Amino acid sequence: MAIKTMEELFLHGLEDVYFAEKQIVKALPKMAKAVRSKELKDAMETHLGETKEQVKRLERVFKLLGKKAKGTECPAIEGLIEEGQELMKETKDKDVVSAGLLAGAQAVEHYEIARYGTLVAWARLLGHDDAADILEDTLEEEKNADRILTEIALAEVNAQAERAA
Amino acid sequence: MAIKTMEELFLHGLEDVYFAEKQIVKALPKMAKAVRSKELKDAMETHLGETKEQVKRLERVFKLLGKKAKGTECPAIEGLIEEGQELMKETKDKDVVSAGLLAGAQAVEHYEIARYGTLVAWARLLGHDDAADILEDTLEEEKNADRILTEIALAEVNAQAERAA
Repeated sequence: MAIKTMEELFLHGLEDVYFAEKQIVKALPKMAKAVRSKELKDAMETHLGETKEQVKRLERVFKLLGKKAKGTECPAIEGLIEEGQELMKETKDKDVVSAGLLAGAQAVEHYEIARYGTLVAWARLLGHDDAADILEDTLEEEKNADRILTEIALAEVNAQAERAA
Repeated sequence: MAIKTMEELFLHGLEDVYFAEKQIVKALPKMAKAVRSKELKDAMETHLGETKEQVKRLERVFKLLGKKAKGTECPAIEGLIEEGQELMKETKDKDVVSAGLLAGAQAVEHYEIARYGTLVAWARLLGHDDAADILEDTLEEEKNADRILTEIALAEVNAQAERAA
Protein backbone atom coordinates (compact mmCIF):
# COMPACT_ATOMS: atom_id res chain seq x y z
CA MET A 1 0.00 0.00 0.00
CA ALA A 2 1.30 3.45 -0.89
CA ILE A 3 1.28 5.68 2.19
CA LYS A 4 0.41 9.31 1.56
CA THR A 5 -1.39 10.54 4.69
CA MET A 6 -1.05 10.24 8.48
CA GLU A 7 -4.26 8.18 8.50
CA GLU A 8 -2.69 5.70 6.07
CA LEU A 9 0.57 5.67 8.04
CA PHE A 10 -1.41 4.86 11.20
CA LEU A 11 -3.34 2.08 9.44
CA HIS A 12 -0.11 0.64 8.06
CA GLY A 13 1.35 0.64 11.58
CA LEU A 14 -1.68 -1.25 12.88
CA GLU A 15 -1.35 -3.84 10.11
CA ASP A 16 2.34 -4.22 10.95
CA VAL A 17 1.74 -5.00 14.65
CA TYR A 18 -1.27 -7.18 13.79
CA PHE A 19 1.00 -9.33 11.61
CA ALA A 20 3.68 -9.31 14.32
CA GLU A 21 1.32 -10.39 17.12
CA LYS A 22 -0.02 -13.27 15.02
CA GLN A 23 3.51 -14.49 14.29
CA ILE A 24 4.30 -14.32 18.01
CA VAL A 25 1.22 -16.40 18.87
CA LYS A 26 2.54 -19.07 16.49
CA ALA A 27 6.16 -18.94 17.72
CA LEU A 28 5.77 -18.73 21.52
CA PRO A 29 4.61 -22.33 22.25
CA LYS A 30 7.68 -23.79 20.48
CA MET A 31 9.96 -21.35 22.28
CA ALA A 32 8.44 -22.13 25.70
CA LYS A 33 9.08 -25.83 25.05
CA ALA A 34 12.75 -25.27 24.15
CA VAL A 35 13.92 -23.12 27.08
CA ARG A 36 15.53 -24.36 30.25
CA SER A 37 14.16 -22.47 33.23
CA LYS A 38 10.67 -22.89 34.60
CA GLU A 39 10.41 -19.11 35.18
CA LEU A 40 11.08 -18.38 31.51
CA LYS A 41 8.68 -21.12 30.36
CA ASP A 42 5.96 -19.68 32.62
CA ALA A 43 6.66 -16.12 31.47
CA MET A 44 6.37 -17.20 27.83
CA GLU A 45 3.12 -19.04 28.46
CA THR A 46 1.64 -16.07 30.32
CA HIS A 47 2.71 -13.78 27.50
CA LEU A 48 1.10 -16.13 24.96
CA GLY A 49 -2.23 -15.52 26.68
CA GLU A 50 -1.62 -11.74 26.69
CA THR A 51 -0.63 -11.80 23.03
CA LYS A 52 -3.86 -13.57 22.02
CA GLU A 53 -5.74 -10.83 23.87
CA GLN A 54 -3.64 -8.17 22.07
CA VAL A 55 -4.67 -9.66 18.72
CA LYS A 56 -8.33 -9.28 19.74
CA ARG A 57 -7.70 -5.69 20.87
CA LEU A 58 -6.22 -4.85 17.48
CA GLU A 59 -9.31 -6.35 15.83
CA ARG A 60 -11.45 -4.02 17.98
CA VAL A 61 -9.30 -1.06 16.85
CA PHE A 62 -9.70 -1.99 13.16
CA LYS A 63 -13.46 -2.24 13.73
CA LEU A 64 -13.57 1.18 15.42
CA LEU A 65 -11.87 2.64 12.33
CA GLY A 66 -14.32 0.84 10.02
CA LYS A 67 -11.50 -1.24 8.51
CA LYS A 68 -11.03 -4.94 7.97
CA ALA A 69 -8.37 -6.45 10.28
CA LYS A 70 -5.42 -7.50 8.16
CA GLY A 71 -1.70 -7.89 8.56
CA THR A 72 1.13 -6.50 6.51
CA GLU A 73 4.45 -8.30 6.39
CA CYS A 74 6.84 -7.17 9.11
CA PRO A 75 10.42 -8.22 8.28
CA ALA A 76 11.70 -7.14 11.70
CA ILE A 77 9.60 -9.70 13.58
CA GLU A 78 10.05 -12.37 10.93
CA GLY A 79 13.83 -11.96 11.20
CA LEU A 80 13.80 -12.21 14.99
CA ILE A 81 11.61 -15.32 15.01
CA GLU A 82 13.64 -16.98 12.25
CA GLU A 83 16.82 -16.40 14.22
CA GLY A 84 15.34 -18.20 17.21
CA GLN A 85 14.22 -21.13 15.05
CA GLU A 86 17.66 -21.51 13.49
CA LEU A 87 19.24 -21.51 16.93
CA MET A 88 16.94 -24.31 18.08
CA LYS A 89 18.08 -26.37 15.06
CA GLU A 90 21.79 -25.61 15.48
CA THR A 91 22.45 -26.46 19.09
CA LYS A 92 21.26 -28.95 21.65
CA ASP A 93 22.82 -26.93 24.51
CA LYS A 94 19.81 -25.78 26.55
CA ASP A 95 21.73 -22.86 28.10
CA VAL A 96 22.58 -21.49 24.66
CA VAL A 97 19.05 -22.01 23.33
CA SER A 98 17.53 -20.37 26.43
CA ALA A 99 19.88 -17.39 26.27
CA GLY A 100 19.29 -16.86 22.56
CA LEU A 101 15.51 -17.19 22.74
CA LEU A 102 15.33 -14.92 25.77
CA ALA A 103 17.40 -12.30 23.93
CA GLY A 104 15.11 -12.66 20.92
CA ALA A 105 12.03 -12.26 23.10
CA GLN A 106 13.48 -9.08 24.62
CA ALA A 107 14.19 -7.68 21.16
CA VAL A 108 10.60 -8.46 20.14
CA GLU A 109 9.23 -6.71 23.26
CA HIS A 110 11.35 -3.64 22.57
CA TYR A 111 10.15 -3.58 18.97
CA GLU A 112 6.56 -3.70 20.15
CA ILE A 113 7.07 -1.04 22.83
CA ALA A 114 8.43 1.32 20.16
CA ARG A 115 5.59 0.51 17.74
CA TYR A 116 2.71 0.75 20.22
CA GLY A 117 4.17 3.97 21.68
CA THR A 118 4.06 5.48 18.20
CA LEU A 119 0.57 4.14 17.46
CA VAL A 120 -0.86 5.62 20.66
CA ALA A 121 0.58 9.05 19.75
CA TRP A 122 -0.73 8.87 16.18
CA ALA A 123 -4.16 7.68 17.30
CA ARG A 124 -4.45 10.72 19.61
CA LEU A 125 -3.20 13.07 16.87
CA LEU A 126 -5.86 11.75 14.49
CA GLY A 127 -8.62 12.03 17.09
CA HIS A 128 -9.08 8.26 17.49
CA ASP A 129 -9.14 8.43 21.27
CA ASP A 130 -11.00 5.13 21.77
CA ALA A 131 -8.37 3.37 19.67
CA ALA A 132 -5.59 5.15 21.59
CA ASP A 133 -6.96 3.89 24.93
CA ILE A 134 -7.06 0.29 23.69
CA LEU A 135 -3.52 0.53 22.26
CA GLU A 136 -2.29 2.02 25.52
CA ASP A 137 -3.47 -1.07 27.43
CA THR A 138 -1.30 -3.20 25.19
CA LEU A 139 1.65 -0.81 25.49
CA GLU A 140 1.57 -1.17 29.29
CA GLU A 141 1.36 -4.95 28.99
CA GLU A 142 4.39 -5.04 26.68
CA LYS A 143 6.41 -2.84 29.05
CA ASN A 144 5.54 -5.17 31.89
CA ALA A 145 6.50 -8.25 29.84
CA ASP A 146 9.86 -6.62 29.08
CA ARG A 147 10.49 -5.96 32.79
CA ILE A 148 9.77 -9.60 33.61
CA LEU A 149 12.05 -10.85 30.82
CA THR A 150 14.87 -8.56 31.97
CA GLU A 151 14.62 -9.92 35.53
CA ILE A 152 14.67 -13.49 34.22
CA ALA A 153 17.61 -12.70 31.93
CA LEU A 154 19.70 -11.48 34.86
CA ALA A 155 18.77 -14.52 36.97
CA GLU A 156 19.54 -16.86 34.03
CA VAL A 157 22.95 -15.31 33.42
CA ASN A 158 23.78 -15.70 37.11
CA ALA A 159 22.58 -19.30 37.19
CA GLN A 160 24.66 -20.12 34.10
CA ALA A 161 27.71 -18.47 35.62
CA GLU A 162 27.25 -20.60 38.77
CA ARG A 163 26.91 -23.82 36.78
CA ALA A 164 30.08 -22.92 34.85
CA ALA A 165 32.06 -22.12 38.02
CA MET B 1 27.52 -19.85 11.19
CA ALA B 2 26.16 -22.65 13.35
CA ILE B 3 25.87 -21.52 16.97
CA LYS B 4 26.65 -24.18 19.55
CA THR B 5 28.18 -22.33 22.53
CA MET B 6 27.60 -19.11 24.51
CA GLU B 7 30.85 -17.75 23.09
CA GLU B 8 29.55 -18.28 19.54
CA LEU B 9 26.18 -16.81 20.46
CA PHE B 10 27.96 -13.71 21.83
CA LEU B 11 30.10 -13.39 18.69
CA HIS B 12 27.02 -13.77 16.50
CA GLY B 13 25.33 -10.98 18.47
CA LEU B 14 28.33 -8.71 17.95
CA GLU B 15 28.27 -9.40 14.20
CA ASP B 16 24.56 -8.63 14.13
CA VAL B 17 24.91 -5.18 15.75
CA TYR B 18 28.04 -4.45 13.69
CA PHE B 19 26.03 -5.01 10.51
CA ALA B 20 23.16 -2.95 11.96
CA GLU B 21 25.35 0.04 12.91
CA LYS B 22 26.93 0.12 9.45
CA GLN B 23 23.51 0.12 7.79
CA ILE B 24 22.44 2.97 10.08
CA VAL B 25 25.54 5.02 9.14
CA LYS B 26 24.50 4.67 5.49
CA ALA B 27 20.81 5.45 6.06
CA LEU B 28 20.89 8.38 8.53
CA PRO B 29 22.13 11.15 6.17
CA LYS B 30 19.24 10.50 3.72
CA MET B 31 16.76 10.40 6.58
CA ALA B 32 18.06 13.66 8.08
CA LYS B 33 17.61 15.33 4.69
CA ALA B 34 14.00 14.14 4.35
CA VAL B 35 12.55 15.18 7.72
CA ARG B 36 10.75 18.40 8.50
CA SER B 37 11.85 19.70 11.89
CA LYS B 38 15.25 21.17 12.60
CA GLU B 39 15.34 19.38 16.00
CA LEU B 40 14.89 16.00 14.36
CA LYS B 41 17.45 16.79 11.64
CA ASP B 42 19.96 17.83 14.33
CA ALA B 43 19.23 14.77 16.46
CA MET B 44 19.80 12.50 13.46
CA GLU B 45 23.06 14.22 12.59
CA THR B 46 24.30 13.99 16.18
CA HIS B 47 23.36 10.32 16.25
CA LEU B 48 25.23 9.75 12.98
CA GLY B 49 28.41 10.89 14.74
CA GLU B 50 27.65 8.63 17.70
CA THR B 51 26.93 5.68 15.43
CA LYS B 52 30.29 6.05 13.65
CA GLU B 53 31.94 5.96 17.07
CA GLN B 54 29.87 2.86 17.99
CA VAL B 55 31.18 1.08 14.88
CA LYS B 56 34.74 1.81 16.03
CA ARG B 57 33.92 0.56 19.54
CA LEU B 58 32.66 -2.73 18.11
CA GLU B 59 35.91 -3.04 16.15
CA ARG B 60 37.80 -2.62 19.44
CA VAL B 61 35.64 -5.38 20.98
CA PHE B 62 36.34 -7.79 18.07
CA LYS B 63 40.04 -7.03 18.47
CA LEU B 64 39.92 -7.71 22.24
CA LEU B 65 38.40 -11.11 21.45
CA GLY B 66 41.06 -11.80 18.81
CA LYS B 67 38.42 -11.87 16.05
CA LYS B 68 38.11 -10.12 12.72
CA ALA B 69 35.37 -7.47 12.70
CA LYS B 70 32.61 -8.64 10.39
CA GLY B 71 28.88 -8.20 10.04
CA THR B 72 26.15 -10.77 9.75
CA GLU B 73 22.91 -9.92 8.00
CA CYS B 74 20.31 -8.49 10.36
CA PRO B 75 16.82 -8.66 8.77
CA ALA B 76 15.26 -6.60 11.58
CA ILE B 77 17.33 -3.50 10.79
CA GLU B 78 17.15 -4.05 7.04
CA GLY B 79 13.36 -4.20 7.27
CA LEU B 80 13.12 -1.00 9.30
CA ILE B 81 15.43 0.94 6.98
CA GLU B 82 13.66 -0.36 3.88
CA GLU B 83 10.31 0.75 5.29
CA GLY B 84 11.65 4.30 5.71
CA GLN B 85 13.02 4.35 2.19
CA GLU B 86 9.72 3.20 0.71
CA LEU B 87 7.90 5.90 2.63
CA MET B 88 10.21 8.59 1.23
CA LYS B 89 9.36 7.36 -2.28
CA GLU B 90 5.63 7.08 -1.70
CA THR B 91 4.72 10.46 -0.26
CA LYS B 92 5.81 14.06 -0.67
CA ASP B 93 3.99 15.07 2.54
CA LYS B 94 6.79 16.13 4.89
CA ASP B 95 4.68 15.57 8.01
CA VAL B 96 4.02 11.97 7.02
CA VAL B 97 7.64 11.33 6.05
CA SER B 98 8.89 12.88 9.31
CA ALA B 99 6.45 10.91 11.46
CA GLY B 100 7.28 7.63 9.70
CA LEU B 101 11.04 8.11 9.82
CA LEU B 102 10.92 9.20 13.45
CA ALA B 103 8.91 6.08 14.32
CA GLY B 104 11.42 3.96 12.39
CA ALA B 105 14.33 5.58 14.23
CA GLN B 106 12.65 4.85 17.59
CA ALA B 107 12.15 1.20 16.60
CA VAL B 108 15.83 1.00 15.61
CA GLU B 109 16.92 2.49 18.96
CA HIS B 110 14.74 0.03 20.86
CA TYR B 111 16.18 -2.85 18.86
CA GLU B 112 19.69 -1.70 19.72
CA ILE B 113 18.88 -1.17 23.41
CA ALA B 114 17.64 -4.77 23.62
CA ARG B 115 20.66 -6.12 21.74
CA TYR B 116 23.36 -4.17 23.59
CA GLY B 117 21.70 -4.96 26.94
CA THR B 118 21.98 -8.66 26.10
CA LEU B 119 25.55 -8.33 24.82
CA VAL B 120 26.71 -6.60 28.02
CA ALA B 121 25.22 -9.43 30.14
CA TRP B 122 26.77 -12.15 27.96
CA ALA B 123 30.18 -10.42 27.90
CA ARG B 124 30.19 -10.37 31.74
CA LEU B 125 29.05 -14.01 31.91
CA LEU B 126 31.91 -15.03 29.62
CA GLY B 127 34.46 -13.01 31.58
CA HIS B 128 35.03 -10.43 28.82
CA ASP B 129 34.82 -7.49 31.20
CA ASP B 130 36.76 -5.06 28.98
CA ALA B 131 34.34 -5.78 26.15
CA ALA B 132 31.38 -5.41 28.52
CA ASP B 133 32.56 -1.93 29.59
CA ILE B 134 32.85 -0.78 25.97
CA LEU B 135 29.43 -2.19 25.05
CA GLU B 136 27.93 -0.51 28.10
CA ASP B 137 29.07 2.91 26.85
CA THR B 138 27.14 2.30 23.65
CA LEU B 139 24.09 1.02 25.54
CA GLU B 140 23.92 4.28 27.51
CA GLU B 141 24.28 6.31 24.31
CA GLU B 142 21.42 4.40 22.67
CA LYS B 143 19.17 4.92 25.69
CA ASN B 144 19.92 8.62 25.57
CA ALA B 145 19.23 8.77 21.82
CA ASP B 146 15.86 7.08 22.44
CA ARG B 147 14.95 9.63 25.14
CA ILE B 148 15.75 12.49 22.76
CA LEU B 149 13.71 10.92 19.93
CA THR B 150 10.74 10.38 22.26
CA GLU B 151 10.79 14.06 23.29
CA ILE B 152 10.95 15.14 19.65
CA ALA B 153 8.15 12.72 18.72
CA LEU B 154 5.82 14.27 21.29
CA ALA B 155 6.71 17.81 20.18
CA GLU B 156 6.23 16.83 16.51
CA VAL B 157 2.82 15.31 17.13
CA ASN B 158 1.74 18.45 18.99
CA ALA B 159 3.06 20.71 16.23
CA GLN B 160 1.21 18.67 13.58
CA ALA B 161 -1.98 18.79 15.60
CA GLU B 162 -1.67 22.60 15.81
CA ARG B 163 -1.08 22.95 12.07
CA ALA B 164 -4.12 20.75 11.42
CA ALA B 165 -6.34 22.77 13.81
